[in-house]
Amino acid sequence: MLKIAIAGATGYTGAELIRLLLRHSKVELVGVTSEQSAGEKITNRLPFLTGLCDLTLEKLDPVRLANQADLIFCALSHTQGMHAVREWIDAGKTVIDLSADFRLKSAKTYETWYNAPHHAPELLQKAVYGLPELYREEISFGKGVRLIANPGCYPTGTLLPLYPFLKSGEVDTAREIVIDAKSGITGAGRTPKDHTHFPQVNEGLVAYNIGTHRHLPEIEQQIASFNAKVIFTPYLLPINRGILTTLYLPLKHPLSQNELKLILSDQYKNEPFIRLIDSPPNLKDVTGSNFCDIAVFATEGGRMAILISAIDNLVKGASGQAIQNMNLVMGWNEREGLDGPGLYP
Amino acid sequence: MLKIAIAGATGYTGAELIRLLLRHSKVELVGVTSEQSAGEKITNRLPFLTGLCDLTLEKLDPVRLANQADLIFCALSHTQGMHAVREWIDAGKTVIDLSADFRLKSAKTYETWYNAPHHAPELLQKAVYGLPELYREEISFGKGVRLIANPGCYPTGTLLPLYPFLKSGEVDTAREIVIDAKSGITGAGRTPKDHTHFPQVNEGLVAYNIGTHRHLPEIEQQIASFNAKVIFTPYLLPINRGILTTLYLPLKHPLSQNELKLILSDQYKNEPFIRLIDSPPNLKDVTGSNFCDIAVFATEGGRMAILISAIDNLVKGASGQAIQNMNLVMGWNEREGLDGPGLYP
Amino acid sequence: MLKIAIAGATGYTGAELIRLLLRHSKVELVGVTSEQSAGEKITNRLPFLTGLCDLTLEKLDPVRLANQADLIFCALSHTQGMHAVREWIDAGKTVIDLSADFRLKSAKTYETWYNAPHHAPELLQKAVYGLPELYREEISFGKGVRLIANPGCYPTGTLLPLYPFLKSGEVDTAREIVIDAKSGITGAGRTPKDHTHFPQVNEGLVAYNIGTHRHLPEIEQQIASFNAKVIFTPYLLPINRGILTTLYLPLKHPLSQNELKLILSDQYKNEPFIRLIDSPPNLKDVTGSNFCDIAVFATEGGRMAILISAIDNLVKGASGQAIQNMNLVMGWNEREGLDGPGLYP
Amino acid sequence: MLKIAIAGATGYTGAELIRLLLRHSKVELVGVTSEQSAGEKITNRLPFLTGLCDLTLEKLDPVRLANQADLIFCALSHTQGMHAVREWIDAGKTVIDLSADFRLKSAKTYETWYNAPHHAPELLQKAVYGLPELYREEISFGKGVRLIANPGCYPTGTLLPLYPFLKSGEVDTAREIVIDAKSGITGAGRTPKDHTHFPQVNEGLVAYNIGTHRHLPEIEQQIASFNAKVIFTPYLLPINRGILTTLYLPLKHPLSQNELKLILSDQYKNEPFIRLIDSPPNLKDVTGSNFCDIAVFATEGGRMAILISAIDNLVKGASGQAIQNMNLVMGWNEREGLDGPGLYP
Repeated sequence: MLKIAIAGATGYTGAELIRLLLRHSKVELVGVTSEQSAGEKITNRLPFLTGLCDLTLEKLDPVRLANQADLIFCALSHTQGMHAVREWIDAGKTVIDLSADFRLKSAKTYETWYNAPHHAPELLQKAVYGLPELYREEISFGKGVRLIANPGCYPTGTLLPLYPFLKSGEVDTAREIVIDAKSGITGAGRTPKDHTHFPQVNEGLVAYNIGTHRHLPEIEQQIASFNAKVIFTPYLLPINRGILTTLYLPLKHPLSQNELKLILSDQYKNEPFIRLIDSPPNLKDVTGSNFCDIAVFATEGGRMAILISAIDNLVKGASGQAIQNMNLVMGWNEREGLDGPGLYP
Repeated sequence: MLKIAIAGATGYTGAELIRLLLRHSKVELVGVTSEQSAGEKITNRLPFLTGLCDLTLEKLDPVRLANQADLIFCALSHTQGMHAVREWIDAGKTVIDLSADFRLKSAKTYETWYNAPHHAPELLQKAVYGLPELYREEISFGKGVRLIANPGCYPTGTLLPLYPFLKSGEVDTAREIVIDAKSGITGAGRTPKDHTHFPQVNEGLVAYNIGTHRHLPEIEQQIASFNAKVIFTPYLLPINRGILTTLYLPLKHPLSQNELKLILSDQYKNEPFIRLIDSPPNLKDVTGSNFCDIAVFATEGGRMAILISAIDNLVKGASGQAIQNMNLVMGWNEREGLDGPGLYP
Repeated sequence: MLKIAIAGATGYTGAELIRLLLRHSKVELVGVTSEQSAGEKITNRLPFLTGLCDLTLEKLDPVRLANQADLIFCALSHTQGMHAVREWIDAGKTVIDLSADFRLKSAKTYETWYNAPHHAPELLQKAVYGLPELYREEISFGKGVRLIANPGCYPTGTLLPLYPFLKSGEVDTAREIVIDAKSGITGAGRTPKDHTHFPQVNEGLVAYNIGTHRHLPEIEQQIASFNAKVIFTPYLLPINRGILTTLYLPLKHPLSQNELKLILSDQYKNEPFIRLIDSPPNLKDVTGSNFCDIAVFATEGGRMAILISAIDNLVKGASGQAIQNMNLVMGWNEREGLDGPGLYP
Repeated sequence: MLKIAIAGATGYTGAELIRLLLRHSKVELVGVTSEQSAGEKITNRLPFLTGLCDLTLEKLDPVRLANQADLIFCALSHTQGMHAVREWIDAGKTVIDLSADFRLKSAKTYETWYNAPHHAPELLQKAVYGLPELYREEISFGKGVRLIANPGCYPTGTLLPLYPFLKSGEVDTAREIVIDAKSGITGAGRTPKDHTHFPQVNEGLVAYNIGTHRHLPEIEQQIASFNAKVIFTPYLLPINRGILTTLYLPLKHPLSQNELKLILSDQYKNEPFIRLIDSPPNLKDVTGSNFCDIAVFATEGGRMAILISAIDNLVKGASGQAIQNMNLVMGWNEREGLDGPGLYP
């Protein structure tokens, strides 16, 4: 059994990691940290785990954690885990970082977008971007990767549908690609804020950070070689889980519905967690699962395609993808612990 | 007091008409119809009106209704009220029709999109499209209009932000205008269906009728003279009320944030129900009110603008707008009965 | 026009006061305070008021407020307004306090339950408990009352159905009265907390403060003369507005459904804001209105009655009732500004 | 691998059976029926199963199903499966019936409450009531039971907390036990109705079937030997899953908090799916899991105890419990396929 620790275990991605790891046959959870609740049983903060996990939360002590665990999921907020990650890497551990700290290849870009210095810039080039559908080979066992930068939730929901079309050469990059992405509130984390207070959210819908969201440079970095321009509008959606991303894709030449579908299926026909469907994806159908459902629709005249993807932001958009990355890094079955449907309804 | 009747009073737009008319100082509600519940007190079907409205529901009898009322709101489903509307017009009454039956100018287009023959095509040219911000003069007292086709909810949320930009000549009509519009479930009416059953909707989000929604030809008709192409994607949003419409607008020339705002304020600075705001509109802020909140955002490079509007689909998107139209037709203060804020939160 | 100020205008009860006062024909809002947002336009914090209220938020300065306004609604948290209330009373103003500070007659009880000293104990006996259906005469114009302690939301939803039965002498006070009360989240105020964070609330239901809720002594004080024992369980309900209170009432003698209804109608038949109904009240039917809907149900054997009441916690449970109290104190029509239905659905 | 069929696979309990069976290591799903969607792929009706279940829906043909499967879950509405169940029993199959058809021991009581004749009364005495915590021995492998009547959701949430106290002899049966039970909307099934239409439910709360709910005789039958009287009030709660049941329990003698807890732990300390907790159970903590969380609270004076239980109505209240029953009947590990946490948040 691989020994696992989670730094930042009481946030939503931490809790989701535990939920999924409890179903994984090859790991044992040995350590969980929380700065605010150190000393408490984890079930105090996450009562849904009562009877299932008996660990006590500790303050983050990178050295002690390195002694306990072979692989560490770092589910801290950005900037909080940089030093610890370096320590773990130096101690020979494998780290899957769920924050934004190692996703951008340029420390300067990081510092511009996150208003904070980067304390481990030498690791940026060593980190692999953990989107298995695009970087499976780099991530897989045998390549020796020890730091995986787990992608952001919006980039996951955007890049999976977008990439095959960019690769196909059919996108008219002279026109903007519009990305309209609606996210459930767990995407905003567990710390209560005015804009995530129940009555402020419930029965509402609002766009935020138009043109300034920190996931924009992450998307742009991944598609940089295609010279495409994107416009990205995220929304706070009054549900717990899920990101529904609609992409309006300008095409060089009119393409039929079948030609569009072929571009997706050529890329994804053997992917375990991509489901190509014919009707518009519904967030309900992926809640709790690691699937990314994708559909494409031709428009009249054919000059644009509409792409829609649905993911659970806490699973394929965070903790499920992190486990998928762990499975690859360890040379295990990629589906281990992630198999099966989500919760419906 | 003007005598008012409502045909189809137990649907959501009918109920909302009653709610608003009870606050209106110049009208008296004298008749309400329902095919399914005729003979019952209206409070049986709409208990929120207990103590406020004592009327009994009747089957639709156009002649009797014409005898009772001076102005009739027709809140029936499309195709159900055509004959009655003709009867009322012939009897000299004023009719505000909330269905789609008199919005399209061409009976042929109607028949194509609604799969039904049009039984009163001669009225199509007489009907005025009841979007006061665009057609105030045609609607107003003195012009003698007696049939108002109250706009659809999506067209209202789309045309109000879009129109000033098309008029300005700044839109690059060689590129598509993308309309991404999220609607609360009351927009689907009161009849229970599988896709509006609570567990099917709650905690989900899904696009529907991509490229085939019946509000598309209505939008296209209104902007026909500008030669613009639109792509329209509607969604079912798990809230009761509201349509948040985001428009991605290609521009001929880069425009600054201030230039974009000026286009809106030039058009709307004196409008009683349009609020131009600087932050992204939230559906919460218009719930229950007749306001349309609009904001515009420049994008990097300036080749596109992002427009967002928020309305309550049952108020500005239906019954509130119908009362605004009544106020204009009668020569009353346009705000009468519609003043004041909505419900927050 | 009566000049009105609101201390604590950006919380939910403050916002609701403004919403309702904007429809009131006899008042003018002249001052609004907020400690956190002083200096900002109120519409910054409450954008739903855009175009309707142009006031700027000020820090609480009791003297200045007393100079501006004739009547002050104090919508601060408990303990925050005591000194100011004394100042306003001394300055000859009328104060309607929406906090808990003047509801309990005993400073000692207050200090026990609220863990804070009472700084204006001499006002406790002067304050009238503002539940008009029970204390209309004391509140009304001519009695000279200048300090009204506006009731808590749970006590309002409990006392209105309960009082007529206690008065009737039919309640078996040897057995406990069970009160099971479910409240929407606005009842917890506007300050974000872990237990009101959207994902913590949504799709959940949980009881809290069992046997220890601060509204319990308030209920007990009001029914003290009847020697009845109550058990009170409140819940956080994942909706914005409303309290549904179910009371299980032990009876001395079996009573029929008609006898039970008669007890209610004897007490309330002329009340403008009490609606006695036959089917179980639904929170939906009172949202946004000042109504309290009440139904009573006999049980098999007749030894117990089930009473259910529905109110909007922000209207009849707070700000609407405060305006009802203002209307009485001023000798105005009790319904002024409160007439009409709420929002449905 | 045990061959399994599900009659009525597209309803919510059918879908939940499939979700759970896909994680079960000892079964193979071979047949699924639906009267309305026969001939369609099951993923047409349940798209969350895309890629996971390739079965085609068939019309219910009891003989064919008996040929295909060894164990049949009957998830049809009450009265719809009686004949088929008899056929399967006669063919030597094991049947777990999730409807109400075999829960009541008296055909006459059934006919009174369900307004329908019972077509297989001879099976009523053979059926075992599938509440493992109370009837484990009767259900278990070796006893030869072949028909299990899976309990109703409300009875499960009520009996589990209630039973140990009745057994303890501490309940004062001269006074009524009050049961106040709030259920998510999936409890009402998948067929759309007016009272489950999204806008009719959302932002509301309403009691229904006061004193007349069909789960009342089921509860009464199970506690008949204790001579206790219950009052049962169910509510429609605007969430998808979960029943929170609060019981107000009259006690013969005052009991301390510790004594109350001891009664529960004596009964349940070794139960795999009962979690005894100290704080009020939250529906969020059991969503998607087979747990029943229970807490008990003493009241002042000690004459009454407050019991609260939380279950997921589709899991422990229906399909999870059905699988727990299957595990027992087959002599497997009772936790098989049901292990692990639910979805949070």
